[in-house]
Amino acid sequence: MYRWAQDLWPICRSLTGEGVRITLNYIQNLLPELVIHDVPTGTKAFDWEVPLEWNITDAYIADEFNTRIIDFQKNNLHIVGYSIPVDKWMYLEELEQYLFSLPQYPDAIPYVTSYYKKRWGFCLSQQQRKQLTNQNYHVVINSSLKHGVLNYGELIIPGRSKQEIFLSTYICHPSMANNELSGPVVTTALAQWLEGLGNLRYTYRIIFIPETIGSIVYLSRHLSTLKKNCIAGFVITCVGDDRAYSYMPSRHGHTLADRAAKHVLKYHTANYDTYSFLERGSDERQYCSPGVDLPVCSIMRSKYGEYPEYHTSLDDLKLVTSEGLQGGFDVLSKALMLIENNAYYKTKCLCEPQLGKRGLYPTLSQKRDKDIYDMMNILAYADGEKDLIEIAEITKQNALDCLPIIEKLIHAGLLEEIKY
Amino acid sequence: MYRWAQDLWPICRSLTGEGVRITLNYIQNLLPELVIHDVPTGTKAFDWEVPLEWNITDAYIADEFNTRIIDFQKNNLHIVGYSIPVDKWMYLEELEQYLFSLPQYPDAIPYVTSYYKKRWGFCLSQQQRKQLTNQNYHVVINSSLKHGVLNYGELIIPGRSKQEIFLSTYICHPSMANNELSGPVVTTALAQWLEGLGNLRYTYRIIFIPETIGSIVYLSRHLSTLKKNCIAGFVITCVGDDRAYSYMPSRHGHTLADRAAKHVLKYHTANYDTYSFLERGSDERQYCSPGVDLPVCSIMRSKYGEYPEYHTSLDDLKLVTSEGLQGGFDVLSKALMLIENNAYYKTKCLCEPQLGKRGLYPTLSQKRDKDIYDMMNILAYADGEKDLIEIAEITKQNALDCLPIIEKLIHAGLLEEIKY
Amino acid sequence: MYRWAQDLWPICRSLTGEGVRITLNYIQNLLPELVIHDVPTGTKAFDWEVPLEWNITDAYIADEFNTRIIDFQKNNLHIVGYSIPVDKWMYLEELEQYLFSLPQYPDAIPYVTSYYKKRWGFCLSQQQRKQLTNQNYHVVINSSLKHGVLNYGELIIPGRSKQEIFLSTYICHPSMANNELSGPVVTTALAQWLEGLGNLRYTYRIIFIPETIGSIVYLSRHLSTLKKNCIAGFVITCVGDDRAYSYMPSRHGHTLADRAAKHVLKYHTANYDTYSFLERGSDERQYCSPGVDLPVCSIMRSKYGEYPEYHTSLDDLKLVTSEGLQGGFDVLSKALMLIENNAYYKTKCLCEPQLGKRGLYPTLSQKRDKDIYDMMNILAYADGEKDLIEIAEITKQNALDCLPIIEKLIHAGLLEEIKY
Repeated sequence: MYRWAQDLWPICRSLTGEGVRITLNYIQNLLPELVIHDVPTGTKAFDWEVPLEWNITDAYIADEFNTRIIDFQKNNLHIVGYSIPVDKWMYLEELEQYLFSLPQYPDAIPYVTSYYKKRWGFCLSQQQRKQLTNQNYHVVINSSLKHGVLNYGELIIPGRSKQEIFLSTYICHPSMANNELSGPVVTTALAQWLEGLGNLRYTYRIIFIPETIGSIVYLSRHLSTLKKNCIAGFVITCVGDDRAYSYMPSRHGHTLADRAAKHVLKYHTANYDTYSFLERGSDERQYCSPGVDLPVCSIMRSKYGEYPEYHTSLDDLKLVTSEGLQGGFDVLSKALMLIENNAYYKTKCLCEPQLGKRGLYPTLSQKRDKDIYDMMNILAYADGEKDLIEIAEITKQNALDCLPIIEKLIHAGLLEEIKY
Repeated sequence: MYRWAQDLWPICRSLTGEGVRITLNYIQNLLPELVIHDVPTGTKAFDWEVPLEWNITDAYIADEFNTRIIDFQKNNLHIVGYSIPVDKWMYLEELEQYLFSLPQYPDAIPYVTSYYKKRWGFCLSQQQRKQLTNQNYHVVINSSLKHGVLNYGELIIPGRSKQEIFLSTYICHPSMANNELSGPVVTTALAQWLEGLGNLRYTYRIIFIPETIGSIVYLSRHLSTLKKNCIAGFVITCVGDDRAYSYMPSRHGHTLADRAAKHVLKYHTANYDTYSFLERGSDERQYCSPGVDLPVCSIMRSKYGEYPEYHTSLDDLKLVTSEGLQGGFDVLSKALMLIENNAYYKTKCLCEPQLGKRGLYPTLSQKRDKDIYDMMNILAYADGEKDLIEIAEITKQNALDCLPIIEKLIHAGLLEEIKY
Repeated sequence: MYRWAQDLWPICRSLTGEGVRITLNYIQNLLPELVIHDVPTGTKAFDWEVPLEWNITDAYIADEFNTRIIDFQKNNLHIVGYSIPVDKWMYLEELEQYLFSLPQYPDAIPYVTSYYKKRWGFCLSQQQRKQLTNQNYHVVINSSLKHGVLNYGELIIPGRSKQEIFLSTYICHPSMANNELSGPVVTTALAQWLEGLGNLRYTYRIIFIPETIGSIVYLSRHLSTLKKNCIAGFVITCVGDDRAYSYMPSRHGHTLADRAAKHVLKYHTANYDTYSFLERGSDERQYCSPGVDLPVCSIMRSKYGEYPEYHTSLDDLKLVTSEGLQGGFDVLSKALMLIENNAYYKTKCLCEPQLGKRGLYPTLSQKRDKDIYDMMNILAYADGEKDLIEIAEITKQNALDCLPIIEKLIHAGLLEEIKY
């Protein structure tokens, strides 16, 4: 995963344009079943429409000696996203209104966009800004805003059931790592892992989209299918650093995705940060909006907006680590495994079964160990009205650890899966 | 309000009699639409019946030199309410059984009544009592208990809907201020304010009654209407001092009145005292009784029974202040405004609307301020299944502050009121 | 009760056999209506079947001089329950595998059984074990395992209603006192007390069974009746020491038995230990299993598994006391009384009744005492939708103390029982 992140790092991505296509092609190379879709500029999607396609080849601020002071080639964050083309000379005083920096983080280039209002601008560190002098600067942005397409990638991994698990990540951020190369690379790894597992109960719908407009466009095309089939989903974002685990609930916080996320996080890590839906900021804004109401939440490492490097050039490949990405992968794959195996179980006999005669219980009446109690507790709560997650929560066990016990009990004819 | 309280202060009120009528006439002067009703002695009302009308012109204890030691003309609390007429000479030893004082509050004349058993008695401060000597006293009460009427005032302010908000206060207490001149004067001010607002959604039913027997009589005449139309109500009592805010729930504590009261109090004051219905003591005893079950609670300043001056001569116009009354008015008028404007709202488009193109959202992706989040949160939770109070509670906003935002969103075509 | 415990102490009880019959006969002497049932070996009961009947007359380990080192005649715990017959000479080295002791409790003989696997063994204190030397020992167990019967006792005390309260205790433990002579003796005392009360609302079904197999056999014969008629039940176990009170909930913890147990315990003792159903260990394992789901919980003194003497020879008649047994009896009889009298009540008039005219309320308006408030609170919450336990919980009263008040209110025509 870390190597993929390194490969994708230098590409200048935005809502639309060549950078998105290069990124999607790279992922398609890893996931050959990925379908890349084109949605033309101007296409309506609920209250929105697909914007012009933006491309950029070069941009800089040069001094009177033609030396580039600020150079898009060095860092694509230097340009306000969706900047219109410019080629002008102007004195610092006039230029100031087009410059964005963060006084409180003097080394950081901020990430700024202006998708829906025509504008141009440069982002630079406060350090760089201080060194500008009152001279005439040459400001050049070689960009284009034209009728074109919005691209997204979609991968369907079919399962035995039409019911779906939905994974959504976004590929519209330029060179930043936790937010957001981590999302696409972890999602790619999850997709490969799911394809490798085979014989899946659920169908997996995995999309790589530009944030906001991408999810809105996708929902405008697939809402009825998703509302009918989607039983759980995750927005996969900020899953690459190794400092924290975070949970962002769905709008009401009670969906299967939420229950699985909280259960898995509890056993995966000693502590994790629970946020409120009031602190949302990614595509759950759309997936959980009134009338859409998909069962979608997020499991993250350090959450967007909550770490100092967020939306700056400091969110880089030193912040994101192999371990961080692996942790993101692990907890999400556990959540998927849990949902994949979650079901309603029922003990098949009345009263406790006689486990001793099946070799499942000690024949001598002495202290039993925890394994025995865990098994007895599954039998005691498997009443056909509780799913595995609830049984595990009540009996204070890791639901994933229950799976081999359940298999053993089913094999012994003592338990049955009655529905999922 | 304070001036009204001063005017009403000296009147000797009780369940019935001239003092009540003078008080109601004074209020009718301020609220010309007020209708004053007469209910004859002996009228049945559920388990009760209207008692004899009580009037009193003079009363005193005089010493052997005819000097008035205890004088009803100086303080109408000196007489046990509903005292029968007396004109006797008796030595202190015999007199003692007719005297009531409070050893723990030596300066306070207690407030004592005996509505339903024929009795007489004098109330005096412990200081005064200590000065009585073992001599022959002349005890005179010029009172009458006759077939007459019970009076109450009723004001209906019609609204667009037949659904009603109910306000009940009581006018049966002699010269005491927080409990209970504050209730009638704040209720009068609220009624004037509501009349001034005009174009009200709800009809307001406002009554000025004697406590207990008055509410029972009123319910016996209007229960079916109230049960059908009343959506929320408040017993207005103890709203005049400036030491505390208090909340007394309805019997189960979950009515619209309760929800509005708690929401308004939370934003109106840094902290307020929440009591249990077990600590009830006013007309919610009737309004919330089994089978009546009106959605009625109380918002108070210092609650009856909970402040040292309660039911004594120390509950006077020094304890009640202009600021205290204004605070009572403010919090109750906010609660009424909130109920008046409470409704179920629904966001009209799927997914977030594009606020930028409507000038409701910054076009540049930088830190948004709280106003933007508040608006987004209203849109996110306006799913047609939550009323304004619930939306405001979830999104941690003052519901009254949401009203201009909601108006703006409705005007922009993004939100609709679907029911109230 | 303590004398009965002394009488029953020396008998060697197990799942089956002569010891159980002697015990049941002793109880039948105290409860002549008790019916003793025989269930033949091999009878199927759900996943189980009745085991062979076990009897034992003598057992010992003797040294080379024929001196009994370990002697069943001195303590019946010395023998692993259901030991097969043995008569062998063996050196200590070989004998070791048949010996059970507790290093952490050097004076205690542990209680060990092997009901469902043919085995033999001796239990002894760690002290005794240390004194064994490497010599040839004569090991003798005069026991028999034969087709026979499983016995249990059943007592039905008829009430006015077919609805039943179910009491279950077990008579399969050899010489141990809290667990488990206390259960049978307290249950016997409860049965005598119930018979003495007469005119019971509910029918009482009281059984004395061997644990686990006994409750499974009993359920296999009476499940449909119990599911139809049983409104509450208690497993009566560990009710004899005077150190603690404990509560073991039913599987979901919300039955009438649970509600009564918790209410009674709260007022009976300053604090009691609440356990989780995950810590269950007696016949609630069967009564609360999925599909059985009887409303059964336990009120105990020191809970099985939670006191150091548990399942050893130290659980003796010094640990169990007259006071301990009486406390167990008292709290259980209170719970039964509460359930017997629990009902839904409704205040018969709208608004508060006028209590003064009935002599139930002071006629002078001064501080009322708690009794008056308690009565008013019952009237305020008796809305026909809450039973006595709920009314008492809400109004913070001991439900048993409400009974005389309720009787007075019913007599005054102010309250009615509408259902139970």
